[in-house]
Amino acid sequence: MTKYFETELDLLKQTLLRMAGKAEAMIHKSVQALVQRDVSLSDEIPHIEDEVNRLQLEIDDRAFKLLALRQPMAHDLRLIIAAMKISGDLERIADQAVNIQENTKVLLQFPLLKPLIDIPKMAEIATEMLRDSLDAFVESDAAKARVVVTRDDEVDGLKNQVFRELLTYMISDPRTIQVGLQLILVARHLERIADHATNIAEDVVYLVEAKDIRHHAEELE
Amino acid sequence: MTKYFETELDLLKQTLLRMAGKAEAMIHKSVQALVQRDVSLSDEIPHIEDEVNRLQLEIDDRAFKLLALRQPMAHDLRLIIAAMKISGDLERIADQAVNIQENTKVLLQFPLLKPLIDIPKMAEIATEMLRDSLDAFVESDAAKARVVVTRDDEVDGLKNQVFRELLTYMISDPRTIQVGLQLILVARHLERIADHATNIAEDVVYLVEAKDIRHHAEELE
Repeated sequence: MTKYFETELDLLKQTLLRMAGKAEAMIHKSVQALVQRDVSLSDEIPHIEDEVNRLQLEIDDRAFKLLALRQPMAHDLRLIIAAMKISGDLERIADQAVNIQENTKVLLQFPLLKPLIDIPKMAEIATEMLRDSLDAFVESDAAKARVVVTRDDEVDGLKNQVFRELLTYMISDPRTIQVGLQLILVARHLERIADHATNIAEDVVYLVEAKDIRHHAEELE
Repeated sequence: MTKYFETELDLLKQTLLRMAGKAEAMIHKSVQALVQRDVSLSDEIPHIEDEVNRLQLEIDDRAFKLLALRQPMAHDLRLIIAAMKISGDLERIADQAVNIQENTKVLLQFPLLKPLIDIPKMAEIATEMLRDSLDAFVESDAAKARVVVTRDDEVDGLKNQVFRELLTYMISDPRTIQVGLQLILVARHLERIADHATNIAEDVVYLVEAKDIRHHAEELE
């Protein structure tokens, strides 16, 4: 591998990490606005989303040029393909943060239903999963990536709990329907973020082991 | 381009079309079960989903081998990258059909809220978008792909209408909350399917014109 090619691969990784940092910031700000009941805490989200979108185009462009000009093999080829897939997941994570911001704008028009506990918890786990999946990518650490995949069930469990609890509120007091619905949607968006982190972790396992664990959950055991 | 390489690219396209056909069947069955109030109409969905997942792995594998062994350039390289991206969107469309089936199982435990009009309409448009985006891919037809992108707004508009209408039901009669919530989630899943069809169409424009229209809606005008 030439020095130049190595530098280019490093740049690709760095760009992806930058994109992931921005997606994480978007999740944080959207959930903070919700928890603190202050939509201004998420004001920067559209601006950060523009940067995320720009970085996705940059990553795809870098990846395409590497494929076209360097004709990489084996691990390097898998790395470049993984970078493109991961950037797609990060872009979708950013979309979910925008969705959470939209839900928050609606629900802040109504009084607080109850202190939020499970939703911030979901956000925390999803964010950890995202961060760990990217660490696993940078460190080519398949074991760490497999841990991320197993955590997806935690988030699903919390989402089901949130659903059940909110539905009870909504049925017993119709004045809570609009807030309840928005919170249910927020829980779904956070679940989707965890799904995308899981996709990223699966791509990392493939990158490191040249083994596709998607659609084969049994292999995780 | 060698004859052999051409055959391999054709096989990649054919596999993708097969996958798209199965994803479309899943949407159809999940929405039929909902509209006809007969969950058995969607019994085949888990089986078809397995096939969709297997086809995704096959497409990624074919694409990887083509990249590694043929070192394609320009349009061929873009075609292979597009095929991988499109297979990712098709797999997510299949996931959404599974979600619709889950919602249907819950809501069929409750009486019919009202005849469904907008949801089948959303499904119809999303399915047309999916089919047209794949036609555009096979025919390398960027104009057709751009039409798909513009139709995304139709689906979003219908989703907002469904939301508003169901919320009115839910607030006026709390007995409709559970069904209303499930229908709102179905509308969201259909909106996501339309989003994925839009992603596919954007990939087709990139494939044909080597021009990235993602995140640049203004260029559609």
